Amino acid sequence: MEIVPGALLKQINSPNDLKNVSREQLHQVCDELRQYIIDVVSVHGGHFAASLGVVELSVALHYVYNTPYDQLVWDVGHQAYGHKILTGRRDAFPTNRKYGGLSGFPKRSESEYDTFGVGHSSTSISAALGMAMAAKYKGENRKSVAIIGDGSMTAGMAFEAMNHAGVADSDVLIILNDNCMSIDPNVGALKEYLTDITTSPTYNKLKSDVWKIMGKLPVGKGFSRAMAHKLTEGVKGMVSSSSNLFEALKLRYFGPIDGHNITNLVDTLKDLREIPGPKILHIVTVKGKGYALAEQDQTKWHAPGLFDKITGEIVKKTYNAPQPPKYQDVFGHTMIELAEMNDKIMGVTPAMPSGSSLKFMMEKMPNRAFDVGICEQHAVTLSAGLATQGMRVFCNIYSSFMQRSFDQVVHDVAIQKLPVVLCLDRAGLVGEDGPTHHGCYDIAYFRCIPNMIIVAPMNEQELRNLMYTAQLESTKYPFVIRYPRGEGVMPEWRTKFEAIEIGKGRKLKDGAGIAILSIGHPGNFVQAAIRELRTEGLNPAHYDMRFVKPIDEAMLHEVFSNYSKVITVEDGTVVGGFGSAVLEFMAQHDYQASVKILGIPDRLVEHGTLKELYRECRYDAAAIVDATKKMFEVSSELSVG
Amino acid sequence: MEIVPGALLKQINSPNDLKNVSREQLHQVCDELRQYIIDVVSVHGGHFAASLGVVELSVALHYVYNTPYDQLVWDVGHQAYGHKILTGRRDAFPTNRKYGGLSGFPKRSESEYDTFGVGHSSTSISAALGMAMAAKYKGENRKSVAIIGDGSMTAGMAFEAMNHAGVADSDVLIILNDNCMSIDPNVGALKEYLTDITTSPTYNKLKSDVWKIMGKLPVGKGFSRAMAHKLTEGVKGMVSSSSNLFEALKLRYFGPIDGHNITNLVDTLKDLREIPGPKILHIVTVKGKGYALAEQDQTKWHAPGLFDKITGEIVKKTYNAPQPPKYQDVFGHTMIELAEMNDKIMGVTPAMPSGSSLKFMMEKMPNRAFDVGICEQHAVTLSAGLATQGMRVFCNIYSSFMQRSFDQVVHDVAIQKLPVVLCLDRAGLVGEDGPTHHGCYDIAYFRCIPNMIIVAPMNEQELRNLMYTAQLESTKYPFVIRYPRGEGVMPEWRTKFEAIEIGKGRKLKDGAGIAILSIGHPGNFVQAAIRELRTEGLNPAHYDMRFVKPIDEAMLHEVFSNYSKVITVEDGTVVGGFGSAVLEFMAQHDYQASVKILGIPDRLVEHGTLKELYRECRYDAAAIVDATKKMFEVSSELSVG
Repeated sequence: MEIVPGALLKQINSPNDLKNVSREQLHQVCDELRQYIIDVVSVHGGHFAASLGVVELSVALHYVYNTPYDQLVWDVGHQAYGHKILTGRRDAFPTNRKYGGLSGFPKRSESEYDTFGVGHSSTSISAALGMAMAAKYKGENRKSVAIIGDGSMTAGMAFEAMNHAGVADSDVLIILNDNCMSIDPNVGALKEYLTDITTSPTYNKLKSDVWKIMGKLPVGKGFSRAMAHKLTEGVKGMVSSSSNLFEALKLRYFGPIDGHNITNLVDTLKDLREIPGPKILHIVTVKGKGYALAEQDQTKWHAPGLFDKITGEIVKKTYNAPQPPKYQDVFGHTMIELAEMNDKIMGVTPAMPSGSSLKFMMEKMPNRAFDVGICEQHAVTLSAGLATQGMRVFCNIYSSFMQRSFDQVVHDVAIQKLPVVLCLDRAGLVGEDGPTHHGCYDIAYFRCIPNMIIVAPMNEQELRNLMYTAQLESTKYPFVIRYPRGEGVMPEWRTKFEAIEIGKGRKLKDGAGIAILSIGHPGNFVQAAIRELRTEGLNPAHYDMRFVKPIDEAMLHEVFSNYSKVITVEDGTVVGGFGSAVLEFMAQHDYQASVKILGIPDRLVEHGTLKELYRECRYDAAAIVDATKKMFEVSSELSVG
Repeated sequence: MEIVPGALLKQINSPNDLKNVSREQLHQVCDELRQYIIDVVSVHGGHFAASLGVVELSVALHYVYNTPYDQLVWDVGHQAYGHKILTGRRDAFPTNRKYGGLSGFPKRSESEYDTFGVGHSSTSISAALGMAMAAKYKGENRKSVAIIGDGSMTAGMAFEAMNHAGVADSDVLIILNDNCMSIDPNVGALKEYLTDITTSPTYNKLKSDVWKIMGKLPVGKGFSRAMAHKLTEGVKGMVSSSSNLFEALKLRYFGPIDGHNITNLVDTLKDLREIPGPKILHIVTVKGKGYALAEQDQTKWHAPGLFDKITGEIVKKTYNAPQPPKYQDVFGHTMIELAEMNDKIMGVTPAMPSGSSLKFMMEKMPNRAFDVGICEQHAVTLSAGLATQGMRVFCNIYSSFMQRSFDQVVHDVAIQKLPVVLCLDRAGLVGEDGPTHHGCYDIAYFRCIPNMIIVAPMNEQELRNLMYTAQLESTKYPFVIRYPRGEGVMPEWRTKFEAIEIGKGRKLKDGAGIAILSIGHPGNFVQAAIRELRTEGLNPAHYDMRFVKPIDEAMLHEVFSNYSKVITVEDGTVVGGFGSAVLEFMAQHDYQASVKILGIPDRLVEHGTLKELYRECRYDAAAIVDATKKMFEVSSELSVG
């Protein structure tokens, strides 16, 4: 079924077309744009509520600014669907997030209007400031605008950029899109502050009232001219030396204004476009605006999957048999079980209570599980601080976002040998979110750090047992547990806890000729491959190594004493990852063998379904079958030759 | 010569002893502590000006707080010498920063008074908040104090922590030690803001004045009670809704007060100790306080080396022949040469203009080279933003601090394939600063990222040529140049620029039996080893690979076609580093050879001189000689057998 855009939207193939629309018709453009997003996302999936919230802003920005000469940087970018539709990608929009289709985020290679690739939060101000500084250096009258949510504003990087922008004397405009939400409701002091200045009579209003009355101060009768002067100067001093948070950072502050009033937005942006220097416009919007259900439950409608746009019913697959749970839910429920047994356990998540499923524990044990906002750095060092007091903290961060706290893991956790448990959800390829979100690198970037225990469970039971092991008093090291996005393999997953010996792998199957060593969930791909190979009379052994570090040396001695052909399988980079750990062991012990490393190749992997990407990266079951057969062939050729 | 502490200091073996000192005698304790620091550091070296600036604060904190039950977290920690001397380490202090001696930073394994290991900036608030939250959870009336400089306050991590602290309802006190300095003068909007509130009549003073006058407002004669009320409420509203930067983050703000007035400090801390909740005390100090020369030139006296404490003359070694320059100075001067040839070049440093020697360019080309403050994350993404506009940015960050911007390198530079040049000074072991500062991990953590070019020059000429190559229009990828702390090997270093083919190593010497592959500066150790080995009739080949990535595959084919014994040498981790890259190549091409990887072992390496640490880590010339001989022996045994 073709989705037809509205009459005006149909004519807008670029921002130039938008500029031909009359001011009075902008309302209609917004309505049509909003409807088109609803029509497409309900059928094709994707992020939803965020883009609805900035429909007016997207239209206003492209109406007022001379894009792409003037440069817009959308923070995170899952709210940029309107921007994409207005900038030549209306008809391609139904391919959004599909293999070979549009990216779900702005991306430089996709369009000249996408000035900066995004996905992770809080990069926009730095990027826009860089653009503004270059324009100044080159003498160009080019404007840069960063559009950033109040959630993204809590990450330290945004503060670093504002601290620089305030003194850099460049034409950068920061638009603070204040909707009180990250994916989950936003938290922290800044959020409360923004609520204060938004809900109380505004700062600007107060100022004008006070100055007005001050001008009428009655001098005489015990109130001297000197006192009047002192009062005026005193108040002035209080205002200028304190002013508001953003003005303290030397940014001119404007707002708050209603982000859904398109004509007011257009007028305000026109004014701001002409004001030089660094400035911030605070707009207030409603995430999910225009789709009632989304306005009411913004977390659910952040990225709801497919749905019936009329009834709001979310499309669910039906199954005949019980299905395996998501790994994240195994984590979430297991946290409660463990915390009930061990009162030293705490949980920390930087702004992902729903995505990590830590929300279950936050609801049940609010004094022991915390959402600390978008701040991976703080989350890790806070966990280290708690660990110094004997707490056993499970800090849950998506693999890709853990990149933000790499230094804190080295400096505050590993060097101090604090037994923080780092749970890396979304490790490995993540599918539709693409290269900014793939959790490719964690095995490589953590493996080089001393004192680390790094594990990857092959299934739900292993995840539970490794979580159990991580919180034991006898476990004295930082403990990384990485597991993938999506479902496991065990419908009956609530198994009894068993401690696992540190550094001990599992031999799943003896074999002949070739040994396959896997780490984590892809062990299941190996099992499928082995079933297939057996039908052809081939019989490789299979070891689930469990521990990337410390690697099971006894097991590797067994492997290399018995096999001269080895395949390793992982959902991490083939550079520096688990396969390399095996090679390092070989070099150290001077084993000679042929080793084939399967995993994420040394190039960017774009978006698509997990199935499509595993196939493309050549470590799904079919690829493991191929690699094994090829190795057997070489083997038999050699023995024949 | 033994250094004798003053009469009072001599009796202080722990904070308990300090508590027995009368309030009136605290001045003397401060004087003696300051003198002891001057006496020891002038003879034994170390950080200097920072500890002098917090002598009074160190005394006051241990006088008022019940340490170690109450917990002090010193941010960065190079200012904690007074703290160390007061907490049982007075007599050990002359071993500071020496091999086997005290660490230059607080360190948990060294003392129970060192509650949190530090070295990198801006971790203290997160750590102290974690301690405070644990105390609250456990029902302990334990206080936590973070002591952080205004420089460290600019890093985003500190903001993240304050944003959480403001709403976490825990007993944490943040002491902002405002001295307007990082190692170099501090920069940014926050610094200007702090100067505003410190130099203008203080906020609190203003408040009390204004309220006093407001109480005397003469009602009548055209100035109604309603107007007086409206004025009072209006001003109140302005103050409460705007308040100051820290109060906006829901921290109770106190100060600014003089950080060198010991009795006032003691009184203030006593009061604050009893005030529950998150709060910040702003104290103003002078870095280098009490040593006139240090007060005058704080950057020079941050860590001056040995000096004559009377004349202030800094001890310099004298040489008969010209000496090689520091790598950092080769970088600094070469930047100017290149920038004069290529107007697209810019330089960015996060708070290390002196340490990186970018200051030369900042002085000569202030519109093209910038100190952006302690904010590695922002520095990298700002560079990426500049790169989108065609600028060729050299962003210089110490290897160990680059850990802070790992995500920005992945997400904003590599994924977008922007040709930012990342110069990693202090790569490899750094010596006396120890494990928090060793630049061990960069080869491993960068090697797994696609699109990266990673090089390590073996000497000054190579550094210059690689910098030249990095800025060529034809170089289209992110370009990492890592080089060590300290001196190179070429007194005549101003060589003519030559472009280097991307991915091309250098064969320095043919040989027989064994090939040694090195990367970066340790290639010089290999050359020394080869000279030694030649005297024993052994003749290994030597290849300077130059490129970690893309690695020179043609050269490796040559190596593995001709040698079955290979040694790799690097000043990076043996896990996941350059040696592993060689192993991955072998596996991919199914070469069989014995490979010995020399580099930084998989454990923490403590502090000491570079020479001591190279020896300990077994990749100095002597160790390379040993490893080579051992491999030759195995070789000849085998051929004999």
